[in-house]
Amino acid sequence: MEFTIEQIAGMLKGSVEGNGSLVVNKLAKIEEATVGCLAFLSNQKYEPYLYTTEATAVIVGKDFEPKKNYTATLIRVDNPYLAFTVLLEQYQQFLMAAKVGIEQPSFIGDNSTTGSNIFRGAFSYIGSNCKIGNNVKIYPQAYIGDNVTIGDNTVIYAGAKIYSDIVIGNRCVVHAGAVIGSDGFGFAPQPDGSYRPIPQVGNVILEDDVCIGANTVVDCATMGSTIIRQGAKLDNLIQIAHNVEIGKHTVIAAQAGISGSTKIGNYCVIAGQVGIVGHLQIADKTSFGAQSGVSKSIQKEGLKLQGSPAFDYKDNLRSLAVFRNLPQLQKRLEELEEKILTLSINEK
Amino acid sequence: MEFTIEQIAGMLKGSVEGNGSLVVNKLAKIEEATVGCLAFLSNQKYEPYLYTTEATAVIVGKDFEPKKNYTATLIRVDNPYLAFTVLLEQYQQFLMAAKVGIEQPSFIGDNSTTGSNIFRGAFSYIGSNCKIGNNVKIYPQAYIGDNVTIGDNTVIYAGAKIYSDIVIGNRCVVHAGAVIGSDGFGFAPQPDGSYRPIPQVGNVILEDDVCIGANTVVDCATMGSTIIRQGAKLDNLIQIAHNVEIGKHTVIAAQAGISGSTKIGNYCVIAGQVGIVGHLQIADKTSFGAQSGVSKSIQKEGLKLQGSPAFDYKDNLRSLAVFRNLPQLQKRLEELEEKILTLSINEK
Amino acid sequence: MEFTIEQIAGMLKGSVEGNGSLVVNKLAKIEEATVGCLAFLSNQKYEPYLYTTEATAVIVGKDFEPKKNYTATLIRVDNPYLAFTVLLEQYQQFLMAAKVGIEQPSFIGDNSTTGSNIFRGAFSYIGSNCKIGNNVKIYPQAYIGDNVTIGDNTVIYAGAKIYSDIVIGNRCVVHAGAVIGSDGFGFAPQPDGSYRPIPQVGNVILEDDVCIGANTVVDCATMGSTIIRQGAKLDNLIQIAHNVEIGKHTVIAAQAGISGSTKIGNYCVIAGQVGIVGHLQIADKTSFGAQSGVSKSIQKEGLKLQGSPAFDYKDNLRSLAVFRNLPQLQKRLEELEEKILTLSINEK
Repeated sequence: MEFTIEQIAGMLKGSVEGNGSLVVNKLAKIEEATVGCLAFLSNQKYEPYLYTTEATAVIVGKDFEPKKNYTATLIRVDNPYLAFTVLLEQYQQFLMAAKVGIEQPSFIGDNSTTGSNIFRGAFSYIGSNCKIGNNVKIYPQAYIGDNVTIGDNTVIYAGAKIYSDIVIGNRCVVHAGAVIGSDGFGFAPQPDGSYRPIPQVGNVILEDDVCIGANTVVDCATMGSTIIRQGAKLDNLIQIAHNVEIGKHTVIAAQAGISGSTKIGNYCVIAGQVGIVGHLQIADKTSFGAQSGVSKSIQKEGLKLQGSPAFDYKDNLRSLAVFRNLPQLQKRLEELEEKILTLSINEK
Repeated sequence: MEFTIEQIAGMLKGSVEGNGSLVVNKLAKIEEATVGCLAFLSNQKYEPYLYTTEATAVIVGKDFEPKKNYTATLIRVDNPYLAFTVLLEQYQQFLMAAKVGIEQPSFIGDNSTTGSNIFRGAFSYIGSNCKIGNNVKIYPQAYIGDNVTIGDNTVIYAGAKIYSDIVIGNRCVVHAGAVIGSDGFGFAPQPDGSYRPIPQVGNVILEDDVCIGANTVVDCATMGSTIIRQGAKLDNLIQIAHNVEIGKHTVIAAQAGISGSTKIGNYCVIAGQVGIVGHLQIADKTSFGAQSGVSKSIQKEGLKLQGSPAFDYKDNLRSLAVFRNLPQLQKRLEELEEKILTLSINEK
Repeated sequence: MEFTIEQIAGMLKGSVEGNGSLVVNKLAKIEEATVGCLAFLSNQKYEPYLYTTEATAVIVGKDFEPKKNYTATLIRVDNPYLAFTVLLEQYQQFLMAAKVGIEQPSFIGDNSTTGSNIFRGAFSYIGSNCKIGNNVKIYPQAYIGDNVTIGDNTVIYAGAKIYSDIVIGNRCVVHAGAVIGSDGFGFAPQPDGSYRPIPQVGNVILEDDVCIGANTVVDCATMGSTIIRQGAKLDNLIQIAHNVEIGKHTVIAAQAGISGSTKIGNYCVIAGQVGIVGHLQIADKTSFGAQSGVSKSIQKEGLKLQGSPAFDYKDNLRSLAVFRNLPQLQKRLEELEEKILTLSINEK
């Protein structure tokens, strides 16, 4: 994809300073840009790179005043960061738009329907009785079981696995290797110490604008639904157990795990490698620091918690500071014990 | 799948109270049931839902006496929970039974044999010299390498990957994205600081009734076998390293990791995100709380341990309680130091 | 694969003691070996097994003197462990060499080229404009997006997913289910509390001799590259976030996670389930113990750290020892407080 600087400036409603007929074919950070790249300068911290960069063009602010010589052509706009983000989004949309059509061989079962303008990659599988919306992309080797519903503009990346009966909304993204709807981990202990599987006949619902990271697993409900609510974003390698609910616009970082039947509120932030036990209720806007362990429900909104078990973020930091000095603390205690022994003897 | 209430009551040897000719087509929790649903009432705590539910039918105990009006038809049985579980199991068996036959395209190598009544989904792959039992289901895009043996009634879900030389027993379940038999993580440090791979030529054995969760990984042994013994149940995203042994009917929750050559006993319970270092022996019936870190062998059976490093569950709770108050403890120590200083000075 | 003991001795330049015409067909540990197996004896600790093993042949040292009767034929060499490793490597190379050719159906897009002697398994997918080197193995159901470059002698196992624009070096191994190049987890918070995806248009570079474990995920950079440098070895189920750099010959154990833009030095050792937050710099030769949490950059080389948050390994052990006794420590403090109260009263 190649554009002249003038074409780019036109898209951004910016003005050109320098040779606008030069061609750019790549977006790059100003500190890494080479010939042919378009970069941007927003944060003052990066200004020195402008004077050394090989970038062919740099987007800068309307009123930016260079202090040294530079070689790039400038594109002046109101907000360089925003302008660059717009270009990034258009670039990504352009790439995605190119993926259309049906590669062969691919598989689709009886009574399944697909909307307009969809992509079905080679070796992708769609079961029976599925309803797939418009502009959906199903990448190669993705698996969609039976009775699955997928809304418009959703992307299922290569090798993602969607079990039967799952409901996925509009504008969702499911990354490679993610598994949606595997059996909940439910086993009834038997008198002889063995376990008997409890059938898991529920499903999973991903509402609109949900993002599921690579190799993340969302188990189906025992009965009813495991639900990921609108706009929630899940990173990679996350475990969501059966009958969990994740609230709207909640963000969960990589390798966190939520145990069965726990309900996470809206606008929560759950950091990496956090573990939350089952059957809890977590209030809206709760945030948990990395590696926290959560074993109790949180009723009050907006708390920042940390530690395993998790408690107030700052109190945890204070306890950890003492933890590092525990050997000295113990030594001071021993010294006190000796002194008191001496004092007591002297007194007698 | 639709049944009249009378048909259901017949299966369960129960008696109908109300309109038995109504049709049900879904199993649901009593608190979520809608028209057409069959629910059950076992725990008294849920009795109020009986008086508000839209469920078409509810399974209740033989001697249950309603205290208010309700609209559902009742099916009276000896044990409502058990009766409902039987229905769930039959429903699941019915669904599974429908998956039979060979979808195309699928791949099978030379000298591989499959038993009767099997399912091979589209894009599934079976290598050479494999022996697949009766009633086995190999879902779409599953991979079975060369020289693999799989017993009867085992289910390999979509996209699971079974490397060569693996042995899988009867009635096992391997969920989507699980990997069985990837190389153990063995590298010999070289004089220049680099690492040379140690060939991993062993295999993995899953005995009968083993369950492997979605995206869980079981590495092959360096030599010999990594073994998951009969009835062990592994949740999602678990790491089992080379030459590990997991005992019979041991249960491991999501995101736990067991390092190389460690042997876990029978009837153990390992909670989520637990980490166990290599070359340990863990006694039967040991249980580890969530996020525990285990760095020593456990010789005594039946211990409940917690923490990182793990020690007695209750002692850990007591230490954690003091941990939260460490800043105050430190302050009290400082106050004592001052008082003693005063006392000492006064004495002199 | 069958060899006579004499053939094996010839390969190893060893001498035969006993019946050299017997046939062996399997490599095994001496404590597990059965008839037909070839084992080795290097560590004296295992000598008793020589007198009970059913192994057909055992490799021993040149000067080894048996103290009891045994049945195996001996192969005497200078270094039994090294000799056995050579056999293991040759065995593995033999197995790998057999995988050559193109199974059908498989998919390759426009303008993609492949080198000589490659293996493309059934249902494997190669996008457009890819450049695949010589002796590359792409196992069944592996996915290679568009514009991907792969060097010579690299192995991509079953179902691994390589997104578009990725660069992979020579002699790399990517295990089953690994995902390379999924979107970095970047979202811009919006005024209404929702999140807008930030396009992730960078890539991933795996340099030569990199190993990526099963179901490990390496996200692409937002812009620029996420880089895994030469010889780095990553175990299973690891999370590598966008714009991370992993140094040369660094080893990372299973289930560890590295957050965005963090740069790990060369020759580091990161144990299992470690979590490292974003935007840090970790010096060369740093080692982190299992389950450590790292929230600060490390400037000094060669430190051994442990804990969450991580500090000096030995200091951490000392603090943990006191942690276990915190309830007693608290009790001793309380006793001191009482004694001092008594002393103070007596004084008055």
